[in-house]
Amino acid sequence: MVETKFQQVAIIGLGLMGASIAAGIKQQALAANVVAWDADATSLDLGCDLGLIDKASDSIADATSEADLIILSVPVQAMAGVLSQITLNGQIITDVSSVKGFVIDTVKAVYGEIPANFVPGHPIAGSEKHGVIAANPDLFRRHRVILTPLKETSDQSTEKVTRLWTSLGAEVVLMTPEHHDDVLAQTSHLPHLLAYALVDTLSAGGDSLEVFEYAAGGFRDFSRIAASDPTMWSDIFSTNASPVVDILEKYVTELQHLKQLIEEGDSEALKAVFERAKAARDHFSKLQQTRHANGG
Amino acid sequence: MVETKFQQVAIIGLGLMGASIAAGIKQQALAANVVAWDADATSLDLGCDLGLIDKASDSIADATSEADLIILSVPVQAMAGVLSQITLNGQIITDVSSVKGFVIDTVKAVYGEIPANFVPGHPIAGSEKHGVIAANPDLFRRHRVILTPLKETSDQSTEKVTRLWTSLGAEVVLMTPEHHDDVLAQTSHLPHLLAYALVDTLSAGGDSLEVFEYAAGGFRDFSRIAASDPTMWSDIFSTNASPVVDILEKYVTELQHLKQLIEEGDSEALKAVFERAKAARDHFSKLQQTRHANGG
Repeated sequence: MVETKFQQVAIIGLGLMGASIAAGIKQQALAANVVAWDADATSLDLGCDLGLIDKASDSIADATSEADLIILSVPVQAMAGVLSQITLNGQIITDVSSVKGFVIDTVKAVYGEIPANFVPGHPIAGSEKHGVIAANPDLFRRHRVILTPLKETSDQSTEKVTRLWTSLGAEVVLMTPEHHDDVLAQTSHLPHLLAYALVDTLSAGGDSLEVFEYAAGGFRDFSRIAASDPTMWSDIFSTNASPVVDILEKYVTELQHLKQLIEEGDSEALKAVFERAKAARDHFSKLQQTRHANGG
Repeated sequence: MVETKFQQVAIIGLGLMGASIAAGIKQQALAANVVAWDADATSLDLGCDLGLIDKASDSIADATSEADLIILSVPVQAMAGVLSQITLNGQIITDVSSVKGFVIDTVKAVYGEIPANFVPGHPIAGSEKHGVIAANPDLFRRHRVILTPLKETSDQSTEKVTRLWTSLGAEVVLMTPEHHDDVLAQTSHLPHLLAYALVDTLSAGGDSLEVFEYAAGGFRDFSRIAASDPTMWSDIFSTNASPVVDILEKYVTELQHLKQLIEEGDSEALKAVFERAKAARDHFSKLQQTRHANGG
């Protein structure tokens, strides 16, 4: 396998994701030089102090003009503003956003076309921690990274970005942006919406918190994800509306069906649904264990 | 505080809960003698071998006739059959079922009245493990136990059962059966239903498991509770139908509202709901931490 090595990597947005990528690149010595830009100067200073980056750039233009790889790790709503400050001169560009269709549309709107070196990406990894201070070079190890190259994307760019992620310990999977947005709407976006809705319903719109005194284990697991960043998540739902609405409608239909079974006292039919769900969950759980046992 | 000490405790149903209570009673030396009955003779043998019980009884009548405390830890659907084999002669009777209204109705149906020594109970504790082998004397430590004494219940019986639980390290809370069933429908039954429904919807009724390959952290937490026992949970929904249907209807209304906000692209309104939910969740999380910090 050809060695992955970049001359200058520019990281735009030095939050948990950007800083963890920087940390991984440093740990694996994948670049001669790592520069970063962030709207928050304190994050950049901390990135320098922690040795995660070699240089803090004053501007996006400055960070990216001489880079051979640009990693965009800014909120999706900030993407257009960031892209408009990048002058394309052959840099490979990738991103880490949770929605791909919206980002691709933004790239097209800003540049008038999809640059051949643009490789949309999404590492399926995260943490409850935030910011540069939580940077972890192993954040992506044994996690999947989905890349959604377009027909305009050069194979070479996809290959280079794949090698970067593989070097950070991740498993890269290629799929279309539409499939990505559909799969993520189901496995990530819907669960977050359900958790927010549960906590909000139980607190009766914030009026009553007594019920939480008696919350048991199941609820605790469930509600943890309701502590996620409200701004980031309202952006995700706004920018991936159609796939989320599709799966949400299916989900509500299933809930209505279960409600009917409960009202009819049909415990045999309820049990059959629960057994089917448990079998699917046990299958999923085994998949996870196998992946971890294989170290990949 | 007066010492809690029983002459003979009879545990009917030696699964995780019954066996953990037995283990706790042994550990704290709360009874001169612990006897148990279970439909499964292997569980009883194991209970003896592990020193959790002093004697395995051949029949419910045999286990309970000389007891001063009877603990019912059998599935709710088995309750009527068990009760009909107990001849009342002043024993205190308590149970550990997740639903209280149904159990109380069963007691009334079997005996024609509520015995003065019946103290309905529900420890808010559990484990993913099952059976005698998983018995844990500390299972209830720092957990809440809800007791729902009725107007017929004698204060002395409630006091004795309260002391038992307190001696096992639990915090006892008294409330009405109706309030218990309503609170548990919200904090435990609804989350389990949502988790089963999510896994079932995403696996398209068991037909497709590809989506689970990309399931991220949030989903993992969520789906863990979908691995719970299908028989036990279909029983819970059948026996606590009305409070579950009530909260489920509120929840579906909230989902419909969120769907509308997503369709309208109203990310400010979405964000406001998420912020409210996060604030409630953070409050809940602090409650939990405070309780653990206080060791009670």
